[in-house]
Amino acid sequence: MQRAIYNLSVTTVGELGEFPLIERIATAIKRASLAVPTAGGFRLELGIGDDAAAWSLARGVQVNTTDTAIEGVHFTSQTMPWADLGWRVWAANVSDIISMGATPLVGLVTLGLPRSLDVTAIDDLYAGMIEACREYGTLIAGGDIVSSRDTFVTVALMGVSEGNLLRRDVARLGDVVGVSGPLGASEGGLRMLQRGLAFNDALLIAHRHPIPRVAIGKALLDAGVTGAMDISDGLVADLGKLCRASGVGATVDAISVPVAAALQDLFSTEEALLCALGGGEDYEVLFTGPREAVTRAVAVIDGASVIGEIVADTSGRVIVLAANGNELQLRDAGWEHLAI
Amino acid sequence: MQRAIYNLSVTTVGELGEFPLIERIATAIKRASLAVPTAGGFRLELGIGDDAAAWSLARGVQVNTTDTAIEGVHFTSQTMPWADLGWRVWAANVSDIISMGATPLVGLVTLGLPRSLDVTAIDDLYAGMIEACREYGTLIAGGDIVSSRDTFVTVALMGVSEGNLLRRDVARLGDVVGVSGPLGASEGGLRMLQRGLAFNDALLIAHRHPIPRVAIGKALLDAGVTGAMDISDGLVADLGKLCRASGVGATVDAISVPVAAALQDLFSTEEALLCALGGGEDYEVLFTGPREAVTRAVAVIDGASVIGEIVADTSGRVIVLAANGNELQLRDAGWEHLAI
Repeated sequence: MQRAIYNLSVTTVGELGEFPLIERIATAIKRASLAVPTAGGFRLELGIGDDAAAWSLARGVQVNTTDTAIEGVHFTSQTMPWADLGWRVWAANVSDIISMGATPLVGLVTLGLPRSLDVTAIDDLYAGMIEACREYGTLIAGGDIVSSRDTFVTVALMGVSEGNLLRRDVARLGDVVGVSGPLGASEGGLRMLQRGLAFNDALLIAHRHPIPRVAIGKALLDAGVTGAMDISDGLVADLGKLCRASGVGATVDAISVPVAAALQDLFSTEEALLCALGGGEDYEVLFTGPREAVTRAVAVIDGASVIGEIVADTSGRVIVLAANGNELQLRDAGWEHLAI
Repeated sequence: MQRAIYNLSVTTVGELGEFPLIERIATAIKRASLAVPTAGGFRLELGIGDDAAAWSLARGVQVNTTDTAIEGVHFTSQTMPWADLGWRVWAANVSDIISMGATPLVGLVTLGLPRSLDVTAIDDLYAGMIEACREYGTLIAGGDIVSSRDTFVTVALMGVSEGNLLRRDVARLGDVVGVSGPLGASEGGLRMLQRGLAFNDALLIAHRHPIPRVAIGKALLDAGVTGAMDISDGLVADLGKLCRASGVGATVDAISVPVAAALQDLFSTEEALLCALGGGEDYEVLFTGPREAVTRAVAVIDGASVIGEIVADTSGRVIVLAANGNELQLRDAGWEHLAI
């Protein structure tokens, strides 16, 4: 079985088989010689190859998230190279940890694989995750591989908080709303690919290789901000979730929303705004808190803006206001995973 | 949206939508009022509803595993009621934690759901997981829901070890091999259902509702056993994995393998043995160690037996010996997830 790994005639996951595939992945991760994180006094006790992975933390609160990408739902192999998929799914989990004010540490990877998939796709997928591990100082400690009709990748990522947590349920009447950077570029990149528009590098990179900024969480905590979440489903949809969790509503001034500059090259002003309000997966962070705290945060986070305020509305409604003060009517302003 | 949760005309996951479904699940988990575990000084800081779940441990090493069940691969709705599926996937993760010598604590659940799925399936699935949580003193702290062509459930479960870990890579020449209880009943139950054989309650329950025994891990550690893994893919396949991880081989005496008694009602002696050697998902534990340690463990674990010994063979080969000392030739002795 060992020899088969480097047999050039072996091409699919099914031909290679489960155990050689696990060995191949374990070898790739080992070769990457990733640095072991130190936040929280983290120590990896046992990595890939047993019934479970084991680690210890000397201090702090663990922060745990999980995020999945499925072929045909979150990506297609036409618009997303495997290495970028690996990067993106790891980055999506990192973004959740950052937006809790925590430092990402270590994750488990579940792969659902069709037997017909080329094994080099898995090599590329792990190369992308390993690149993200290097960028964020994180480790892959284990996981699971299962046979599946559609390819999917699930990451369960653990981080550590050594201070307060940034939460969704603490927005209060009178708080203001901030966002950490320009929005809409990932959605713009997807629309560009789907419609075969003129090529724009910035949008392509934003879509395939979004870069969550790990410093944002600390900057928000230092500024005294208390509420935050990452924007994965779209600004309006995600602000709505934060509002529902807090039992409040929000208004957003459309004119204040930072629209990614590259969108202007390919889209109308209206469509660019819609990308910024409704497109997810830029992995910027949405935050709320007293005006002074949010203002302090905006001053130190590159690209950040104040975009609105928290209002009394127990239903969690988010109203986007045009420059003239009228409510903008939004179709399609967010990603709803199950709606038919 | 809130009202739609109890609207009788709402029937599918797609009609209900993502956020009401999450609220429905969160409500069911809250209503269950699960006890918070205490091992390792565990404290849940933040449960369902934020970007991530948060918890702290006062002491010990964390043990982390993940396991998935996919419709059409690991189960079909014909042979597996949803509540049993929920129980089984949680139990499979608990079994991995037990076989590390650790105590299960808290997990995240990822659901991949077709839009056409009836929402009562999700109610039943969580009822099964909640029942397992009650049985094992564990919590569901969060997760993720994604749209998917085939239904799947992934659990990432964390436990705590306050002593040594039971590992796969510590089997040594001269060690003996033990197993914690009778094998093959789950496989027998599946064959019964697939072939429409005369109904046998014990086999059905073994297949749908296997019960990992949390006391086994502690008993093995107390006895001085060092090597262990749970049997999820079949005795011979899993012992092979343990042997490969340890750089040894093993012989198993077929006559010593505890075959689940209920198999005799429906199957020939040969097929019953094949179920015991090759059928997975009984969630008994396979263990290795010096003869005195294994003998002590077998004396205190109900149903446990010594079944073989570790031999010199760097390839991880497992040989099953008949009563006459000849090697048994096994077809189909284990579950390989990706082989074509």
